[in-house]
Amino acid sequence: MIDKSVVTGKNVQIGQNVVIEKDVVIGDHVTINHQTVIKEGTIIGNYVQIEEFTVLGSAPFTNKKMVRKPHQKLPPLSIGSHVNIGSNCVIYKGTNISDGVLIGDLASIRENVNIGNHTIVGRNVIIEHHTNIGKNVTIQTSSYVTADMMIEDDVFIGPCFASANDKYMGAGNYEYQGPILKKGARIGSNATLLPGVIIGKGAIVGAGAVVTKNVEKKETVVGNPARKLNG
Amino acid sequence: MIDKSVVTGKNVQIGQNVVIEKDVVIGDHVTINHQTVIKEGTIIGNYVQIEEFTVLGSAPFTNKKMVRKPHQKLPPLSIGSHVNIGSNCVIYKGTNISDGVLIGDLASIRENVNIGNHTIVGRNVIIEHHTNIGKNVTIQTSSYVTADMMIEDDVFIGPCFASANDKYMGAGNYEYQGPILKKGARIGSNATLLPGVIIGKGAIVGAGAVVTKNVEKKETVVGNPARKLNG
Amino acid sequence: MIDKSVVTGKNVQIGQNVVIEKDVVIGDHVTINHQTVIKEGTIIGNYVQIEEFTVLGSAPFTNKKMVRKPHQKLPPLSIGSHVNIGSNCVIYKGTNISDGVLIGDLASIRENVNIGNHTIVGRNVIIEHHTNIGKNVTIQTSSYVTADMMIEDDVFIGPCFASANDKYMGAGNYEYQGPILKKGARIGSNATLLPGVIIGKGAIVGAGAVVTKNVEKKETVVGNPARKLNG
Repeated sequence: MIDKSVVTGKNVQIGQNVVIEKDVVIGDHVTINHQTVIKEGTIIGNYVQIEEFTVLGSAPFTNKKMVRKPHQKLPPLSIGSHVNIGSNCVIYKGTNISDGVLIGDLASIRENVNIGNHTIVGRNVIIEHHTNIGKNVTIQTSSYVTADMMIEDDVFIGPCFASANDKYMGAGNYEYQGPILKKGARIGSNATLLPGVIIGKGAIVGAGAVVTKNVEKKETVVGNPARKLNG
Repeated sequence: MIDKSVVTGKNVQIGQNVVIEKDVVIGDHVTINHQTVIKEGTIIGNYVQIEEFTVLGSAPFTNKKMVRKPHQKLPPLSIGSHVNIGSNCVIYKGTNISDGVLIGDLASIRENVNIGNHTIVGRNVIIEHHTNIGKNVTIQTSSYVTADMMIEDDVFIGPCFASANDKYMGAGNYEYQGPILKKGARIGSNATLLPGVIIGKGAIVGAGAVVTKNVEKKETVVGNPARKLNG
Repeated sequence: MIDKSVVTGKNVQIGQNVVIEKDVVIGDHVTINHQTVIKEGTIIGNYVQIEEFTVLGSAPFTNKKMVRKPHQKLPPLSIGSHVNIGSNCVIYKGTNISDGVLIGDLASIRENVNIGNHTIVGRNVIIEHHTNIGKNVTIQTSSYVTADMMIEDDVFIGPCFASANDKYMGAGNYEYQGPILKKGARIGSNATLLPGVIIGKGAIVGAGAVVTKNVEKKETVVGNPARKLNG
């Protein structure tokens, strides 16, 4: 079930019922647990660990109603060194995972995403396409990172975060823009960020806040709609 | 691992480690990727694509505490033509998926659900039993569609939508009714709809709104609790 | 694919492509469906049913950025009798699931968790480590139970519940404490509970409420921030 063209480094451990398609490249000291699928052309660095029921290198698909068709020609999924990927994850081709990243169970990451060094993607986090995530970022469990988002270094996102990128909710004026989170911004649990809002450097968004406009650097906002704390 | 009783059309591609149980019927030009499970009796149309680690045709299960016991005698899962189903999905028997539907990764759909033509069910969307979803509906990523909901044609539901169907929160007065979304209603990201609320034709619910009572047609509501915008 | 050291009771049914690692103990009348993985040392009681693509007995992993390193020496996962576990679940070692528990599809439960008899863990529910959950608790679909939470008996948690345990959002003062839910408390859909809040015996938190301080016993709170109803 491992294609003959697959290149593996030294000390690679592969579990049972694993499928590895053609032209996959696997570094040294990699552990691939049982029942995983590594799709064509995926590149895996050194000291990577992949848990059960995870598929790496998926291709996007579409239907008639979907307005924004995914690119069909995508480079392979590239995974750096010292990366841990949990169970039951789905990660697409055309994406780049840097060194030291941790991806929890049941996470899914679409195509054209970049994730910087040592960032944590929690369990059940879903990341859409065309999103850029910096270094040392924490995205906690069950958060949703919409398409076209920009998340700078050292951002902290609490669990169950929600974001959106379509101001017109499918009504047809397509200026997609996800929220922009500047360096060191911190977002509380279950907060909602509307399309295109900018959260300034070091700003804080309280748990459950619904952010409808930009937040200045170092400002703290809470409530629905979110307002400056004690402001 | 493919039961002898399985009927397959022409040009069917089946990946590695696939389990197909008895009496499954598969149409023409179907692609079933690695490591999927198709359970007994499931009916799959033409030009269907199914990704890895997805199980089709599951049976509901229960425990002592669960008040509402699922039906044990259910017809097979029926999937129309030109349907795409992502990775790590769980779809139950007794459900009907119409032509052209797209179902994203990590979605789960219970028994006694109908989904109309060309509807999109996003990644990580969970749909409960006894729910009816129209045509050309979009349900975005990580949304939760409770049991006994009615979603008419052309409805748009943003990501992280939450709904409920039990007014008494398990306290024992069982008049279950999920929200009712009329034709073309649009629901923003992370909005919450209480049991039984009716969202009128073309009405808009803002992101993060908590809707406790009915919304008139074409009305826009925002906030917690949701109130008419500028009203 | 079943290790020779595995001990199985009578009337055990095992599906196709199942991996059972060494020193697993399986009781009587157990059904293990296709494509599951049972990891080393896991203990399974009688009359247990496990659905497809579920992994039992996972070990926690970490990266450089993660502040709180998981224990590496954990006892095996222990599953009582009459337990049902859905598809695509991930349950860690060092956890104890009592008799009669139901765990829905796509749920994930970390290490050092205790779950009492007959409790329901809904689909897509994510439970963090070091959490104690009582008897006859209902945790509905897509809810997030943070680390260091205490949930007493007979608590009801509606769908899409969010919680947090880090008051400082990753900023470095580590007094982690998840919310504490006293006996019979009821939490509405998509409510948010801040770190360490105590929800009193029989208290009610409305759907979409953002709870920033303790709620007295039998009190009802709603809104953002949550306030006493009619108070």
